[in-house]
Amino acid sequence: MDERERRSFAWAMLQDVLRVVRATGATPVVLSRTPLELDATVHVDRRRLSTAVNDLLDRDAGETAVLMADVPLVTSDTLESFFDCEDDVVLARGLGGGTNALISRHPDFTVDYHDGSYRDHLAIADEIGASVTEFDSYRLALDIDEPDDLAEVLLHGDARAAEWLRECGFGIESGDRAQHVPRTRSPTPQ
Amino acid sequence: MDERERRSFAWAMLQDVLRVVRATGATPVVLSRTPLELDATVHVDRRRLSTAVNDLLDRDAGETAVLMADVPLVTSDTLESFFDCEDDVVLARGLGGGTNALISRHPDFTVDYHDGSYRDHLAIADEIGASVTEFDSYRLALDIDEPDDLAEVLLHGDARAAEWLRECGFGIESGDRAQHVPRTRSPTPQ
Repeated sequence: MDERERRSFAWAMLQDVLRVVRATGATPVVLSRTPLELDATVHVDRRRLSTAVNDLLDRDAGETAVLMADVPLVTSDTLESFFDCEDDVVLARGLGGGTNALISRHPDFTVDYHDGSYRDHLAIADEIGASVTEFDSYRLALDIDEPDDLAEVLLHGDARAAEWLRECGFGIESGDRAQHVPRTRSPTPQ
Repeated sequence: MDERERRSFAWAMLQDVLRVVRATGATPVVLSRTPLELDATVHVDRRRLSTAVNDLLDRDAGETAVLMADVPLVTSDTLESFFDCEDDVVLARGLGGGTNALISRHPDFTVDYHDGSYRDHLAIADEIGASVTEFDSYRLALDIDEPDDLAEVLLHGDARAAEWLRECGFGIESGDRAQHVPRTRSPTPQ
């Protein structure tokens, strides 16, 4: 994908995630480094992700959920089960060690997004004496960083991100375990 | 990994999976192409995996669960929740389109393990009018095919397979998203 396509695909994923969040009855706020023309509240913050999120956690006493925007397989059922977990901190891992979704209901919980944030979030919760649910979900774990991840979206997705890939000519080629996603046709002249 | 190490790691994963199955109160039967010296019933079948599994499903009227042996992050909690799903067919996807765990309670359900078996199992269940639960689990989805998969075991595993990797010098190197697993030391002279 070139830069324009990456943006367009990210936009499709964001639309999927927003739709799913709304379907649970929650009100999404989009955190972005740049202003976005979006039918949702956009909170622009150019600082590091962890700084920006911690600032939002500080403002929202009570409970806040933080969900990555590149989890296009998430469904409202998944998210409702996630929201139903009752501990002070609820964590859903991402492939590669990250934290794709979390809920904080503890005033002292802070985030630290970086490599392997999942284990650090467990440690932070432990330090402050917060109870933790580790929420086990493939749909929340699947974030988009590598070509293999796109194959998962093609295999299991039925919303805009999956449609976007199909419309742009991405397909699944049968292989051993890795499902490749070569372009079977090119939507734009190369 | 060389061939000997692959076998040794596979053995560690099998031990983890057997321990977890037993912890749920179920009695595991190991399906293998070759005889194994194992503290469990081993059913040797040299035919294709699908043929062998379908034969077992035929014999066991009632309900049968089929679990891959390379899912070292599975826990007894995960497996209990999986077993608790009440539909005729319960499916848990593997990364790459496979089916890492299934339950069949329908006499006409058959398996077809190959690339993208998950979608085919959904189709087979649909054809025979079986009700289906799609069980959403990262721990069951994570099977071992590629180096990145080992990183997941190192990140989230605490049983024999994870120990095996650590003892053999595999570690996690901080990177962007991919957590690499270079050997930080070599257990055997190269």
